[in-house]
Amino acid sequence: MGLLVQKYGGTSVGSLERIMRVARRVAASRAAGNDVIVVVSAIGGETDRLLELGREAAPGAEPSQREMDVLVSTGEQVSAALLSICLNDMGTPARSMMGHQARIMTEGPHTKARIRSIEGSKLAETIAAGQVAVVAGFQGIDPDGNITTLGRGGSDTTAVAIAAAARATACEIYTDVDGVYTADPNVCPNAKKISRISYEEMLELASLGAKVLQIRSVEVAMKYAVPIHVRSSFKEDEGTWVVGEETSLESVVVAGVTSDKNETKVTVRSVTDAPGMVAGIFEPLAAESISVDMIIQNVSEEGTTDLTFTVKGGDVAAAKKIVEGMLPELGAKAVIVDEDVVKVSIVGLGMRSHAGVAAKMFRVLAEERINIQAITTSEIKVSCLIEAKYAELAVRALHDAFDLGT
Amino acid sequence: MGLLVQKYGGTSVGSLERIMRVARRVAASRAAGNDVIVVVSAIGGETDRLLELGREAAPGAEPSQREMDVLVSTGEQVSAALLSICLNDMGTPARSMMGHQARIMTEGPHTKARIRSIEGSKLAETIAAGQVAVVAGFQGIDPDGNITTLGRGGSDTTAVAIAAAARATACEIYTDVDGVYTADPNVCPNAKKISRISYEEMLELASLGAKVLQIRSVEVAMKYAVPIHVRSSFKEDEGTWVVGEETSLESVVVAGVTSDKNETKVTVRSVTDAPGMVAGIFEPLAAESISVDMIIQNVSEEGTTDLTFTVKGGDVAAAKKIVEGMLPELGAKAVIVDEDVVKVSIVGLGMRSHAGVAAKMFRVLAEERINIQAITTSEIKVSCLIEAKYAELAVRALHDAFDLGT
Repeated sequence: MGLLVQKYGGTSVGSLERIMRVARRVAASRAAGNDVIVVVSAIGGETDRLLELGREAAPGAEPSQREMDVLVSTGEQVSAALLSICLNDMGTPARSMMGHQARIMTEGPHTKARIRSIEGSKLAETIAAGQVAVVAGFQGIDPDGNITTLGRGGSDTTAVAIAAAARATACEIYTDVDGVYTADPNVCPNAKKISRISYEEMLELASLGAKVLQIRSVEVAMKYAVPIHVRSSFKEDEGTWVVGEETSLESVVVAGVTSDKNETKVTVRSVTDAPGMVAGIFEPLAAESISVDMIIQNVSEEGTTDLTFTVKGGDVAAAKKIVEGMLPELGAKAVIVDEDVVKVSIVGLGMRSHAGVAAKMFRVLAEERINIQAITTSEIKVSCLIEAKYAELAVRALHDAFDLGT
Repeated sequence: MGLLVQKYGGTSVGSLERIMRVARRVAASRAAGNDVIVVVSAIGGETDRLLELGREAAPGAEPSQREMDVLVSTGEQVSAALLSICLNDMGTPARSMMGHQARIMTEGPHTKARIRSIEGSKLAETIAAGQVAVVAGFQGIDPDGNITTLGRGGSDTTAVAIAAAARATACEIYTDVDGVYTADPNVCPNAKKISRISYEEMLELASLGAKVLQIRSVEVAMKYAVPIHVRSSFKEDEGTWVVGEETSLESVVVAGVTSDKNETKVTVRSVTDAPGMVAGIFEPLAAESISVDMIIQNVSEEGTTDLTFTVKGGDVAAAKKIVEGMLPELGAKAVIVDEDVVKVSIVGLGMRSHAGVAAKMFRVLAEERINIQAITTSEIKVSCLIEAKYAELAVRALHDAFDLGT
């Protein structure tokens, strides 16, 4: 018994029938003696429809980001109202709350805002009144009362942040898959569901996680030690628990293999090789909230160097524009964009104490005759950038080599 | 030049193309040197779609009214965002404002709330920043921060209340007709557009007005002396000015003829004829915000009486339920509902000083062999309840008899 935060994604609320199913699930949790706060996404496809509508309204240029947030946030408002109507109709008192009502305060730019704080008292009032709080995910307000949104998958972060603010027992993320797997089951048919995984590993399993959990939500969960339970809204089975390292049962060497197609390689040719040049490129990118992942600087040759880095697909156009504007001051010749790459990663807490994991990964790829274009590592991860067409082959080979299958 | 409030209805924002036309119109008003506050309705048909969706989510009973407000208010949010995107894209700085942002404070029940106050400072800030404020019509918040809506046509009231709060020069109501006519042009092909009409007459021309102006908006305009200009969003012509009596040029005897099909006759049979019985019926109706219009009490016969009254179509089910629950205490036998009636009215300030107007109306109807079931009068209006099938015939006969045609 306790306070549960349950988040239902776009597929789980994809139709009125499914919303009713969610309502029954929430009612059952209440009947089992729990207080419940629900966080809902927009009905599947609705966010994309609204984004498209907004873009059509601005044939001249990029639509106003402030107004796109106002537009897109209606998707979650509709879901929250419909679920609340359903719950009340079934005899479970419920009350929808928008970002401005739940006091979800954000900071940062429109369409990519971050939750700064949540005034738990508003949610607590609803719970104390014996009601289910149905919070619209993905949205908040900034200090001036403007409506903001949190970026793709932001409802996960709403849910985890609320769980932290309300000191919930757990945050359940209901989705259309039944947990986190050792690899994408579409690529590796023998991939296993992971029963427990640490926040750190989950963060590194970025692209696997992106399908079921927004990265930012895992960061917040780790910071506030909120146990996350990723599970299917269509089954009763336990899914995957994402928990702190100390409560994670086993420290396997490699927990999972993942590939991320959403990387693009940007190469700046013949940059003048002088102090400050690299900072000169990356500071303007950071100012536009463009995250750079891998960075490779070739050995200098005759006073110039080639600088290569990777950015997410959605940032490519903006990154290219910024860097092109800087070509004269960099003394550089050209910007070359290569979208035909994929980042393959192995992740596991056990890497900290096991030597030779990276070497084994490179050998496995070499045996498959896959050329490695760039490498990054962390304490618990090794990533290789490879040609896109080898993505599935690489994942399968690594999954087998590290004995992750069933 | 001054501050204009412009309200655009559902037809005026019925498609992206039309929203762009509205944006050009707003931009032109700005270019002419005016500050502009825009109030928008939901895209035509959207409110009905959302209402239907909400009803489907509550198969058991009436959906939660609080949540219906949350659901339906997204319609105006979408319009406001899209128009703001358009305006910004055209180079006219604009900023959408929802009820909670414009601080439109309401009181009264959900789905039928009334504006209590508007914090003009929030709007003033936007105007002072050189921006067009694009306010979502129809919505507000109650003292607890709940989203409320104002009932059908509520965006008109939003616009007029904002014009009052912001001390605007005028409130322009853009719609798909080009003004208020002496009668419905579909019924009387020779009906004339009225160029100026008083608030009092406009209020009495309820059903004519309901098509272009919510009654409540006229009440607010009268209270705060806000000039309303009803005009077409598809033409440049002047429409109809609704203004104070002193500024209305002519006091015609009869300004217009109108018929209202949305009346239903409710008869309570054999009520015990004792003091307090009538109040006993109408107090519970008032408590549910059900407005009763005409009331007829038949002559008492053997200690019982038949009581007849009319309510608006949307209130019939609720009114019937309330009165049926009271039958035992009223000592009454049955409640009979008759929807096959229509209220025909003639309206004009000049009636105050002209005798015999009502008598002429009764004679005209008699000549057409139309039976009058009930009569109500005010200083400037006479209304007759007649069988529904005679509605158009009665309107045409009265329109001709009082020389209103072109």
